[in-house]
Amino acid sequence: MLETFFEPKSVAVIGASRDPEKLGYAVVKNLIEGGYVKIGKVYPINPKGGEVLGLPAYPSVLDVEDPIDLAVIVIPYKFVPGAMKECGEKGIPSVVVITAGFREAGKEGLERERELMQIAKQYGIRVIGPNCLGVIDTFTPLNASFAAGTPPKGPINFMSQSGALGTAVLDWSLAGELGFSKFVSLGNKADVSEIDLLQMWADDPNANVIMAYIEGVPSGREFIDTARLASKKKPIVAVKSGVTQAGSRAVSSHTGSLAGSEQAYAAAFKQAGIIRAHTMEQLFDFARAFAYQPLLKGDRIAIITNAGGPGILATDAIERSGLKIARFDNETIKKLESYLPDAASAANPVDVLGDAAGDRYEYAIDVVSQDPNVDGILVVLTPQALTDIVGTAEAVANLCERVDIPVLAVFMGEKEVQKGIDVLTERGVPNYPFPERAVAALRAMADYRIARDEPLPEYEEIDVDREAVKQVFEKVRSEGRVSIGDFEARAILEAYGFKIPQTELASTPEEAVEIAGRIGYPVVLKIASPDILHKTDVGGVRVGLQNAQDVRDAFELMVYRAERYVPGARIWGCTVQEMTPQGLEVLVGMNRDPQFGPLVTFALGGIYVEILKDATFRIAPFSRREAWQMLDEIRAHALLDGVRGRPPVDKEAIVDTLMRVGQLVTDFPEIVELDINPLMVFEKGQGAVAIDMRLVLTSQE
Amino acid sequence: MLETFFEPKSVAVIGASRDPEKLGYAVVKNLIEGGYVKIGKVYPINPKGGEVLGLPAYPSVLDVEDPIDLAVIVIPYKFVPGAMKECGEKGIPSVVVITAGFREAGKEGLERERELMQIAKQYGIRVIGPNCLGVIDTFTPLNASFAAGTPPKGPINFMSQSGALGTAVLDWSLAGELGFSKFVSLGNKADVSEIDLLQMWADDPNANVIMAYIEGVPSGREFIDTARLASKKKPIVAVKSGVTQAGSRAVSSHTGSLAGSEQAYAAAFKQAGIIRAHTMEQLFDFARAFAYQPLLKGDRIAIITNAGGPGILATDAIERSGLKIARFDNETIKKLESYLPDAASAANPVDVLGDAAGDRYEYAIDVVSQDPNVDGILVVLTPQALTDIVGTAEAVANLCERVDIPVLAVFMGEKEVQKGIDVLTERGVPNYPFPERAVAALRAMADYRIARDEPLPEYEEIDVDREAVKQVFEKVRSEGRVSIGDFEARAILEAYGFKIPQTELASTPEEAVEIAGRIGYPVVLKIASPDILHKTDVGGVRVGLQNAQDVRDAFELMVYRAERYVPGARIWGCTVQEMTPQGLEVLVGMNRDPQFGPLVTFALGGIYVEILKDATFRIAPFSRREAWQMLDEIRAHALLDGVRGRPPVDKEAIVDTLMRVGQLVTDFPEIVELDINPLMVFEKGQGAVAIDMRLVLTSQE
Repeated sequence: MLETFFEPKSVAVIGASRDPEKLGYAVVKNLIEGGYVKIGKVYPINPKGGEVLGLPAYPSVLDVEDPIDLAVIVIPYKFVPGAMKECGEKGIPSVVVITAGFREAGKEGLERERELMQIAKQYGIRVIGPNCLGVIDTFTPLNASFAAGTPPKGPINFMSQSGALGTAVLDWSLAGELGFSKFVSLGNKADVSEIDLLQMWADDPNANVIMAYIEGVPSGREFIDTARLASKKKPIVAVKSGVTQAGSRAVSSHTGSLAGSEQAYAAAFKQAGIIRAHTMEQLFDFARAFAYQPLLKGDRIAIITNAGGPGILATDAIERSGLKIARFDNETIKKLESYLPDAASAANPVDVLGDAAGDRYEYAIDVVSQDPNVDGILVVLTPQALTDIVGTAEAVANLCERVDIPVLAVFMGEKEVQKGIDVLTERGVPNYPFPERAVAALRAMADYRIARDEPLPEYEEIDVDREAVKQVFEKVRSEGRVSIGDFEARAILEAYGFKIPQTELASTPEEAVEIAGRIGYPVVLKIASPDILHKTDVGGVRVGLQNAQDVRDAFELMVYRAERYVPGARIWGCTVQEMTPQGLEVLVGMNRDPQFGPLVTFALGGIYVEILKDATFRIAPFSRREAWQMLDEIRAHALLDGVRGRPPVDKEAIVDTLMRVGQLVTDFPEIVELDINPLMVFEKGQGAVAIDMRLVLTSQE
Repeated sequence: MLETFFEPKSVAVIGASRDPEKLGYAVVKNLIEGGYVKIGKVYPINPKGGEVLGLPAYPSVLDVEDPIDLAVIVIPYKFVPGAMKECGEKGIPSVVVITAGFREAGKEGLERERELMQIAKQYGIRVIGPNCLGVIDTFTPLNASFAAGTPPKGPINFMSQSGALGTAVLDWSLAGELGFSKFVSLGNKADVSEIDLLQMWADDPNANVIMAYIEGVPSGREFIDTARLASKKKPIVAVKSGVTQAGSRAVSSHTGSLAGSEQAYAAAFKQAGIIRAHTMEQLFDFARAFAYQPLLKGDRIAIITNAGGPGILATDAIERSGLKIARFDNETIKKLESYLPDAASAANPVDVLGDAAGDRYEYAIDVVSQDPNVDGILVVLTPQALTDIVGTAEAVANLCERVDIPVLAVFMGEKEVQKGIDVLTERGVPNYPFPERAVAALRAMADYRIARDEPLPEYEEIDVDREAVKQVFEKVRSEGRVSIGDFEARAILEAYGFKIPQTELASTPEEAVEIAGRIGYPVVLKIASPDILHKTDVGGVRVGLQNAQDVRDAFELMVYRAERYVPGARIWGCTVQEMTPQGLEVLVGMNRDPQFGPLVTFALGGIYVEILKDATFRIAPFSRREAWQMLDEIRAHALLDGVRGRPPVDKEAIVDTLMRVGQLVTDFPEIVELDINPLMVFEKGQGAVAIDMRLVLTSQE
């Protein structure tokens, strides 16, 4: 459906210009110099007619007789709606709007963009932009942009929300290290967004990797689902910029204080199988590895170096990254020893010595690549006195063509070494100036393999009582409240099958004593009032009450204090609760993210969640498998398995809680925040009990 | 004293060769082409005499009539001792040994190196190497190395333990971005080490920054003390490679399991004021900023950009780094608004827009640099359609010459942008291809300012009873033990003024009851035996004993069990201890590092230290100020100040404990490991009590 953006049979440039300073000139020039004019028709559109760069110009697309597949609009914004209308009348399916002055220019611009898109929708036109650099497809070849040139052909598709970054990326590519298949500057994303491109590019035979610069995504959930399917077919590497400052907005829950846009994107990328680059440099570094080398099938890396120092740096980087230094077979070591000089090291890292020419590298890579314990190879070179830089580069490239495992090069230096790097680049061996950057790329490759091999999530439907929850919400809202404390919260917890301590509401001291007798001593007494959320502040919680007298005294004192400290509060009485034995306190919560929706948290409870912020996140719905993964992701996860003789806790029960919370917040989008804190988790097999829950609904409109 | 290495009046090359494939040829060639031959005498030494590269050769240094300041040895290792002897007889003060085959070549090589150094010492010769690349001083100019060329002159001094990395660094410098004053390949460091060079280079008028690649340092404490003084005068940026794998050796204490070579180097660099680069790339990035720009005086950064996307990336990076986005004066904003187009952003980050030529950048930098709220400026450029790349580079460079705050450039791209980068480089404005790398350099500059402004540490002498400790150690050793458990440990704790729970040894149940009565119930009873270190394993600890009967029963049961479970154990009886109220449990410990000596730890106690490894380190001795800093360095430091209504703990008491441990482990180098765990810390003003201590002495020889 988006094909006409990339392989149009004809292109109109609305705003084509004879003035070389104008963007409308640059676009036509790129269509010509990029080679499109040889395979398709280009129609410059200019009210004055005449010729543009030797091509006959037309006053309007309506004056062109043949059909037009793609229009590029580069006229001042006030004329854009009219041009769009004409595109519609002409039946043009795809329009790139380069013109700025829309959503990015404030309120009036946003209004202009809305109007423009209404016209497009009316005619069924798909739109890229406005406020973008244009579209490039080097295989067509089509350069429908005002970029400063056409990038080299290559196996990378790139989408950028920022046009300016696009220009920088193109400028890098022109220097030779990156080759693109498709290049799209998305601009304001009024219509075509990352989601459309991911869908299309997943099956693009001309690309091995999708590279994206993202500032924000429009429909969070759809983005995740689309990217997840696409990432099964092709690695997606993305930079997300614009990290919201933590704590910059008021939050009323623990989960809220932990969860920000940064956490939501981290969870979304993880769930979608997107490899996250933390800088533009990483984006390039990772994309080059994916583009030019086979996938890394394991995590055992061999290093071949001509010097100790860089070998140590590479080893450090591999160990820090969580990859492994491959252990060679004896066979491999013997073969290496037979060829290399005595002073060389035949173990990993293989040191072919400072006087090595290309032959030793070639031999070593050949032997090492056949070792079944090696999943990837790092070839490190420093320009020593006798080093054959170009010869080694050629040897590496030769081997690369024969072996089926990724080989990344680290040729260190610039003046002399550049000649070797040029050979590597030309022949598809990515070179990195420092071992750490190559190792980060290998790590990204390993991460991609893990993500790709994850099964697609299976969402469960747990049997719950939605009606009961609906009733609680209706009652709360009918009273003009949005915050739900623990007595009403318990009805919700019960309806969704959480285990909660046995609890009953007593409206008189006598009733409390009667309930306590039934539950069994000792008991906990808590004040019950919809107007008192922080019970401990008014002395509204007493634990360990041993007998009837204790209960009676506590009840009367609590009610007396509550009435005194919170005048006018509605006092329902006190709840009588069984004493829960001590377990491991954890927190399960949810905070609704503006872009991705329900962001569910798992964290250690107590003061540690506040201080160490040791939490992990998933966007609901998620699978049971994903819930299990959350447990392993907190830093203190070892605590769950028992330490210092403590027994392991009931992880199954935590997972179950996460699943039920996931379902609750998916079923009820009106829940904006939720904390189960603490969830008291007992020994394995003994379950978990939700001691306390708070919940906030959206304000009513 | 090392001057003759860098500014010799004459140089002999022992092993000078006419064969261009030989290193002895390369050295002479560098002395000629590097310009030394114009200002000093070069004597090729070759047994065959004749000429080398047009210079008359001598069979031996002894045949040269005039004095020789520096000799460079490049002959096979078996001839090196003889040559060294001749250097001694000739009275040559400085010798660079390029020849390999010494310590790095195993046991025999080490022996050769020892013999060689004995000769050098005998004659009072200072030696660089062996197994090195040589020495360069571009100001002299002297290139006494076999490097592939002479690097450009510049304000950086570089020392490298790895010669091969040196060659890579030189190759980079030859491409133009780095300029060196002095360049030393240290090789095996048989004599001259980092310590000598730091001492000398601190006062080098030709260098603004010292850059180092370090694999290991010889005398840890001396290294710290020298580097600390040097770093007050000049920034030192270093990469430390070769991180020991954590947990690779057996350890018997908590501290031991936390502390490794990585932690020791981190602490040493911190105490020495060395700025740590984590990769070679960072080493270059940081060094360039220090070399060419004034110091960063605060942490408020202004961004000037011609595009939103990179502006966001830069903002993200600044916030993540802990630096601040500067808030401009209204005056500044007004001035910017008066010049920039309406659509530009006059707030920070300043967006001069995609069509900006050099003038807008120049104006904006000028105005922003005068704002007292700005400490540093980041100039970001993407190559958009109308961007004047070279003009902007010139404008930035012009401003840089006038302003007194650091300006770093981020010109993004390579093909077109390179022209601008070349202008920047030539005129001393460091350019970084990505905002994140520039921000990391600014962060390093901020870190240096903080480190430099730290007062020199004042070490305290606490009044303690060394004699008492000596006696305990003697007793322990006389019994053939190295491990000291809590009863003997208490004597040590008391001698060093730690607070410990009131404790007495009872040899009979009656005595225990009598002591308990004196201490006051409830009490704790523990089995006392030098052969039982893990008391709980044999039921040897009982807490909360309420009365005489409890104490009597516990005593008898404990002794019975101890005898049964550990047959033959020496049972001294039981200790009766006062019950310490619950406080915050922390750990103070020490592990002796092979390179730096006593590495003192502070960590949160309990299971959290094991699981979260939230610990910080200093090498003893350290100042009280440094001990205070340790408290702020653990991730959970907020816990010390009280959370959720808990009162702040007695930090003073923790600091005091750290100081006393520092003194204890400095006074007694025979202590190899020590744990005070837990140190129970009470509310502010209430002190802390060392509940338990274990200590291991060096094995006796």
